[in-house]
Amino acid sequence: MTAEIITIGDEILIGQIVDTNSAFIAKELNKIGVSIRQITSVQDEREHLLESFAFAKANADIVIITGGLGPTNDDITKHILCEFTNDALVENAEVLRHITHIFKTYIKRPMLPGNRSQAMVPSKAEVLTNKFGTAPGMWLEKEATIFISMPGVPYEMKGLLENEVIPRIKERFELPYIEHKTLLTYGMGESMIAQRLETFEKNLPKAIKLAYLPSLGSVRLRLSSKGDREEEVSQRMKDQLKQLLPLIEDVFVGFEDEGAFEQVVAQLFVKKGKTLAIAESCTGGALVQRFTQHPGASQYLKGSSVTYATQSKIEVLGIEKATIEKNTVVSEEVALEMATRVRELYKSDIGISTTGNAGPSKGDSDVPVGTVCVAISTARASVAHTFTMGTNRTRVIGKAVNKCLELLQEEILKN
Amino acid sequence: MTAEIITIGDEILIGQIVDTNSAFIAKELNKIGVSIRQITSVQDEREHLLESFAFAKANADIVIITGGLGPTNDDITKHILCEFTNDALVENAEVLRHITHIFKTYIKRPMLPGNRSQAMVPSKAEVLTNKFGTAPGMWLEKEATIFISMPGVPYEMKGLLENEVIPRIKERFELPYIEHKTLLTYGMGESMIAQRLETFEKNLPKAIKLAYLPSLGSVRLRLSSKGDREEEVSQRMKDQLKQLLPLIEDVFVGFEDEGAFEQVVAQLFVKKGKTLAIAESCTGGALVQRFTQHPGASQYLKGSSVTYATQSKIEVLGIEKATIEKNTVVSEEVALEMATRVRELYKSDIGISTTGNAGPSKGDSDVPVGTVCVAISTARASVAHTFTMGTNRTRVIGKAVNKCLELLQEEILKN
Repeated sequence: MTAEIITIGDEILIGQIVDTNSAFIAKELNKIGVSIRQITSVQDEREHLLESFAFAKANADIVIITGGLGPTNDDITKHILCEFTNDALVENAEVLRHITHIFKTYIKRPMLPGNRSQAMVPSKAEVLTNKFGTAPGMWLEKEATIFISMPGVPYEMKGLLENEVIPRIKERFELPYIEHKTLLTYGMGESMIAQRLETFEKNLPKAIKLAYLPSLGSVRLRLSSKGDREEEVSQRMKDQLKQLLPLIEDVFVGFEDEGAFEQVVAQLFVKKGKTLAIAESCTGGALVQRFTQHPGASQYLKGSSVTYATQSKIEVLGIEKATIEKNTVVSEEVALEMATRVRELYKSDIGISTTGNAGPSKGDSDVPVGTVCVAISTARASVAHTFTMGTNRTRVIGKAVNKCLELLQEEILKN
Repeated sequence: MTAEIITIGDEILIGQIVDTNSAFIAKELNKIGVSIRQITSVQDEREHLLESFAFAKANADIVIITGGLGPTNDDITKHILCEFTNDALVENAEVLRHITHIFKTYIKRPMLPGNRSQAMVPSKAEVLTNKFGTAPGMWLEKEATIFISMPGVPYEMKGLLENEVIPRIKERFELPYIEHKTLLTYGMGESMIAQRLETFEKNLPKAIKLAYLPSLGSVRLRLSSKGDREEEVSQRMKDQLKQLLPLIEDVFVGFEDEGAFEQVVAQLFVKKGKTLAIAESCTGGALVQRFTQHPGASQYLKGSSVTYATQSKIEVLGIEKATIEKNTVVSEEVALEMATRVRELYKSDIGISTTGNAGPSKGDSDVPVGTVCVAISTARASVAHTFTMGTNRTRVIGKAVNKCLELLQEEILKN
């Protein structure tokens, strides 16, 4: 069972938007045993679409297409799919009813011709109901290959994929079992880990694949296996994990299936019944946002004071002016006061702070761009660290946030 | 001049990472007049790589390849490029010197065989120096097509593209001029705008293309044109913009070239010499982070108090307990107090607040999931609004942040 993904839209090919749909589709299909062979982004252009449909048909059992279904003139996917499958567009009464309902209930203005045209679908297509928008999904077949077309708006696509596409694929095909296990490690480089795992890697059974994914101070190790029987694949993975884990014990922080790193840390907070408050300067809200993007943060998170201006550190957090004057605002001394003060202010068990210079230009301190001080404070003790994190603003912020997560995990595991 | 991008790595095809490299490359190449015909993501697998190289070669003058150049066994790009161009790997003395230097100066441990192997390059390849990592870029030619291979780590790829690849392409080819103008609009749906622009669109010269890009309460309109002479293309674009702008005056907020929406708003703050403080609940730091991700936020941003827990609103911001008890924590009354208190606390000109329920479960208030209250406070007046923003957590947060930006823009333009 092989699938290919085709995303349509000039906005992708001029780099105006990042294609996040493909990763979501690939992940969901993988879970049910469908492998993605290739992802292709193509222009809103007739010949190119026809060529890519034909190319995908030659290689895949299922072709998932997103984009080009909107109400405006640059949306041509439906027309080209008709041409490709020798079909014609007809107005679908049910889709028209759905669009009319959306306009009456939510949009509250009369429909325009462009809106009504979204009810036109290829006559042989099975319509997939889009609960979250006006463009329906479509399921078409050409010889042995299935073509599935969905709108490019991510949350409409997600709803269609989950509610309509995945159930139909599961019903239609006997699917193999795929398992991925991704291990998060922090604090050691890719090649060092690879050296440690040299013998392990050599002895890996053919049916298991190992991959290395480095990013911002962390390396993710992914083990993948596929087979007809779930128990067999799971046992194979378990056996290898048992060998792998002791080899990386000192740098292993958790499995990615348990969520992103911040979710691993969040679970620790909840499990230990501890609460957190944050004082951020250079990370500018990026740390608190890593936690609050996931539901359930209120179980352990009291809040964060993003005291971006130096004056706000004094007025909002109550940092001593003398501490700043003596040590400059980017210093372990200021970080320590910030962590302690925010812990007291929010009445939390643990306080963490960041103060640094993310660049590109120097701020209210003379430290070089990329210098970041992080402090952790509890009722028992406070400790500060200084890091140098390069000169690229986005990377400095990202690395500082990851470092905070690492220190929080350490702190909470200590108890 | 046509280019294609090939990104290599199973992690893309199983949906573990989102391919952000392609959008960056596409945008940079577009700026210098190179159009991207197709973006293809393929597996770390010999036959598939060979097939995709051949396919790209048939369609493009330049093929940009990222990924598969690491020090571990799953990295095979270099080997397959050799096979494809009938070449062999040789150790490059200069690259070896560079890697040795990086290990001595930054990594501070002996090189491993895997690290040394990164100095092996195809004998006919021109080496592109990677200042930010150990894997060099490579420039190879096969008949009339140029193949450029870069590592997949985004910031190494970016450095190579900017410092090595772009200058070489500009030197080698006579490039056409491409211009895109993207207009940000807020508050009107895609099909309504399309209806307004029906006549405009019909009368557009063939050499100009109009596209609609809807997302979270906003629609971006993109005009694109290409030609041999810069003045001609620019004049053509100017003429059309002069016609387009009056048609969307009431919903137009700025050009995307001026940055993302938060950068447009940030510039207004700087221009008017006003300062901002933020009190966030349901947006959880996402609003302040939109501002601080860009350099220069300290010119207008005092800070943000992310009072996530209800108790923190009382203790940190000084919201009256009675106000919360009487109206619940998600109410315009609480939003108003938050905006006013945070403005006073941080001594800013404008205070803005969010309190709401982003879901999926209900919090400390009985309001339905998706309800968000936003208030703006200045020394002269305070005003609050209530919005319903659907039931998807990520979208509720994203829409609330966009709504805040819209209200801040309105507020600051009033003066």
